[in-house]
Amino acid sequence: MEIVVPVVTPYRGGRVDVDAYSQFIKHLLGRGVTAVYVAGTTGLGPALRHEERVALLEAAASTTKNVIFNVSSLQYEDVVGAVREANRLDIIAVASTAPFYFPSVTPRQVVKYFRDICQKSSHPLYLYNIPSAVGRDVDVKTAGEVGCIAGVKDSVEEIAHTVRYKKALPNARVYNGSNSLILASFVYGLDGVVVSAGNYLPEVVASIREAVKAGELEKAARLQWALDELQMLARDFGGLPAIYEFIREFQGFDLGGPKPPIYPLDEEERAALIQRLRALRERLKL
Amino acid sequence: MEIVVPVVTPYRGGRVDVDAYSQFIKHLLGRGVTAVYVAGTTGLGPALRHEERVALLEAAASTTKNVIFNVSSLQYEDVVGAVREANRLDIIAVASTAPFYFPSVTPRQVVKYFRDICQKSSHPLYLYNIPSAVGRDVDVKTAGEVGCIAGVKDSVEEIAHTVRYKKALPNARVYNGSNSLILASFVYGLDGVVVSAGNYLPEVVASIREAVKAGELEKAARLQWALDELQMLARDFGGLPAIYEFIREFQGFDLGGPKPPIYPLDEEERAALIQRLRALRERLKL
Amino acid sequence: MEIVVPVVTPYRGGRVDVDAYSQFIKHLLGRGVTAVYVAGTTGLGPALRHEERVALLEAAASTTKNVIFNVSSLQYEDVVGAVREANRLDIIAVASTAPFYFPSVTPRQVVKYFRDICQKSSHPLYLYNIPSAVGRDVDVKTAGEVGCIAGVKDSVEEIAHTVRYKKALPNARVYNGSNSLILASFVYGLDGVVVSAGNYLPEVVASIREAVKAGELEKAARLQWALDELQMLARDFGGLPAIYEFIREFQGFDLGGPKPPIYPLDEEERAALIQRLRALRERLKL
Amino acid sequence: MEIVVPVVTPYRGGRVDVDAYSQFIKHLLGRGVTAVYVAGTTGLGPALRHEERVALLEAAASTTKNVIFNVSSLQYEDVVGAVREANRLDIIAVASTAPFYFPSVTPRQVVKYFRDICQKSSHPLYLYNIPSAVGRDVDVKTAGEVGCIAGVKDSVEEIAHTVRYKKALPNARVYNGSNSLILASFVYGLDGVVVSAGNYLPEVVASIREAVKAGELEKAARLQWALDELQMLARDFGGLPAIYEFIREFQGFDLGGPKPPIYPLDEEERAALIQRLRALRERLKL
Repeated sequence: MEIVVPVVTPYRGGRVDVDAYSQFIKHLLGRGVTAVYVAGTTGLGPALRHEERVALLEAAASTTKNVIFNVSSLQYEDVVGAVREANRLDIIAVASTAPFYFPSVTPRQVVKYFRDICQKSSHPLYLYNIPSAVGRDVDVKTAGEVGCIAGVKDSVEEIAHTVRYKKALPNARVYNGSNSLILASFVYGLDGVVVSAGNYLPEVVASIREAVKAGELEKAARLQWALDELQMLARDFGGLPAIYEFIREFQGFDLGGPKPPIYPLDEEERAALIQRLRALRERLKL
Repeated sequence: MEIVVPVVTPYRGGRVDVDAYSQFIKHLLGRGVTAVYVAGTTGLGPALRHEERVALLEAAASTTKNVIFNVSSLQYEDVVGAVREANRLDIIAVASTAPFYFPSVTPRQVVKYFRDICQKSSHPLYLYNIPSAVGRDVDVKTAGEVGCIAGVKDSVEEIAHTVRYKKALPNARVYNGSNSLILASFVYGLDGVVVSAGNYLPEVVASIREAVKAGELEKAARLQWALDELQMLARDFGGLPAIYEFIREFQGFDLGGPKPPIYPLDEEERAALIQRLRALRERLKL
Repeated sequence: MEIVVPVVTPYRGGRVDVDAYSQFIKHLLGRGVTAVYVAGTTGLGPALRHEERVALLEAAASTTKNVIFNVSSLQYEDVVGAVREANRLDIIAVASTAPFYFPSVTPRQVVKYFRDICQKSSHPLYLYNIPSAVGRDVDVKTAGEVGCIAGVKDSVEEIAHTVRYKKALPNARVYNGSNSLILASFVYGLDGVVVSAGNYLPEVVASIREAVKAGELEKAARLQWALDELQMLARDFGGLPAIYEFIREFQGFDLGGPKPPIYPLDEEERAALIQRLRALRERLKL
Repeated sequence: MEIVVPVVTPYRGGRVDVDAYSQFIKHLLGRGVTAVYVAGTTGLGPALRHEERVALLEAAASTTKNVIFNVSSLQYEDVVGAVREANRLDIIAVASTAPFYFPSVTPRQVVKYFRDICQKSSHPLYLYNIPSAVGRDVDVKTAGEVGCIAGVKDSVEEIAHTVRYKKALPNARVYNGSNSLILASFVYGLDGVVVSAGNYLPEVVASIREAVKAGELEKAARLQWALDELQMLARDFGGLPAIYEFIREFQGFDLGGPKPPIYPLDEEERAALIQRLRALRERLKL
């Protein structure tokens, strides 16, 4: 029952703040978090410069060995470069989505892509399946054909979808990536979760895990419901920009805001979010 | 933690077999099933004649009071007629989907429809939300506007979607309708499930519930995984036609086959299904 | 370049008004309309009683031989009954959608369904493809496998989708069913259109055809754009209920309103629609 | 009735071949093409390095003033850098998609993004709407809110969708981007098309335009149908990789193949494609 956090990238004054990143990772690891997922979607990974991603990787890897590094990018040189940088370091795995944006990519091309990475990587390769971003589902059949998938982060809000990977690839580490399925992931027998809620409420994610272990399912459900409400609130404000505010509010860490083309909230939006967040926090007793 | 079964309609020689229906319901109630959902999608409800639906209702209601009756039909007279028949009987509730087939129905029209039923029914009304059949989601906001929704059967394979009804309508009875979410429904604090797997493996559904109560989550997950595999097998054969075969195989009840336009399997399909079913049964030790 | 109209069903005081139907059909045939599509989606066909559909069919067939009769229904007896009634009469064809509502129907089952109708019908069978209502696309491959499809009404808003049927089934009569694709259907070489706009502005649909024949493409485009604006207005009011108002406004025919579960507009909605309709009419000079 | 071509990027030996690009553009302009769309989806734009895109831009702009430059990228620095490079040159416009990949971007954020580009660009800004790649539709309402959209390339296979931009933004240049809607775009009164078929059969696209002008609609339809068949063939091979083969076959230009993560066809795929292409070519007399 691992808790992996796709860590938010601190961004301030037009620059990635690597020191804040290390400190934030240490903070998370002290709150029940098992591992970090570097340069994921929550970390704005595919929108970062190569140097920014490498700086994040080095900061994470010098803090913990429990690092999964998302190398996916639309620019092939950056994928290859990220794999090469990872090869120098002692981490758990590299991860990648299928090629995104281009609408007509075939399953055969997807298989070629992942095999290409496996050849270049000295680390295990994890499939990062996120159809809402990529526009296609890398299903169990395609994942199996690749032949070298050692793990899966499945960002699909159906628990049965993720379970199918575990059945088909029993030796792979399989995680669901939905904040709403933390409890389900633990009780359905997955290896864990990779969830953005771990950035702003790692204690709550850890408490769900402990409650499941202790057989306190009602408590676990209550905490899960609370995370769902925060998720719905974040969505009303475009998701990522809200998470920076949540981290300030709940963890006291100021990580700046997202990097364009994901724009930070303007003052009006921010005020509206904070007001709703505080009301929710009080109601949920978080 | 209720287990409601959308009972398969016995159909043989061009006729609904009401006696088999009663006997099958008794059989189910003796295996841990809480209530029956009459003329649901699994029971081919909207494809039945009015007289057939009424006969099923009477057979069920004379066997148990724990009946939810799905009145939805594309023919308004049959909706109204079904409500009127239900008014004569002592059952839990009537249920209905939103109007289906017609692509341009607005939320305002959906609200009108459900209020119309509430006015005509002496029983509580349950929303039957099944976007894969109806073509639209009756979301929490619309459900709330109706003002008289007393329960929800949500056939969406996302547990968070169903939980949202329970949050918004805390006094309503809320069920998920997916075979893959039985375990999730129990641990997320829903009132129960309405699942077609209850037709062919009621003991297994009940065992999941007992395992959850006993804190045996690994056992619960193992049984849930087994049901998922059966579900995938059924889908390869069009879903409903396969369920009749599963019931024969697991429960020893011969309920005939579905009614056109859902055609029974032909011999070739049937042989292929049985072969795969037996192999699966042996592997899963069911 | 045929213009087929899926005729609106006159409904008043809880009854289908057959006389109004006949008179309205005569009116349409005098305004450039080639044939009528009886009990289509616009005519609320699958929501009508068997007797109502038969009454419409008889009224239409006694007015013109150019009748296509949509027999599709979720109730198999009504499909079979409609085919039998049609067999007694001299009409062009019967049409049917694939079985709708049930989510897991396979292509193999769809083929069985259409072959079943072909066996029972003495008329040619037209495929009525309307994925937005049915929930599945009967693609060119499946249509070809049926082996007896003599025509297609394709209600998909992509002209290339419809053209593919004409390529694969060159002997079939192929129509597009979108108000926005009247001009495209004529210039892409389809056999014609089956469009609800033919109910309220048959003269305009006919003018598009004449303009195409005369090579006046700018005029044709201008008229097509005008129909698009009316279509967008209708959608804001749930589609079908608005069409009854359009017919009153443009053709002076009072056909009552739709039949529940498609509810007529209430007074507030009706007033809002009329106001916008008159403003649009003046602007578009219709 | 403009014909804009989203020019394929010549890629060989791991490098963009700028000379081949210039020569190919000259070739196209001599075959009825009005303007070129540089670094579009067909040109693999968002997957190119900044330097590669700038090299393409310079090569195009030194060949013709009729250049629209697609600046969209997931990396904001590259968007801004591309706009800056374009500012130095005499071209028609820059174009951009909405931010892609990230699932939760709100319409408000989309408006911010486009206004940001308008502020930085000395050229008009064209909206590049391609929901199949971006995951969201920038609808007419959002496009209007931006306030500085001077043109639209709409890659949606519904002609009515594109027409709506022209109605809402009558001063904007509006193009459809679908190979199947060349004829429709010309007769519905759009300003033209931006179509990948212009790479391999610019003469045919130009012939459709001439046929429309001459009122020879049957000829236009026949040519349009032929392009549709090629499109379907390309799709079977992942789209982009096939286009390089089509150009070799029809125009005699060897532009290499696509750049990973869009992999070129392997020998087996290539042989299969060529065989089908030649059979199709003979049948269609192209």
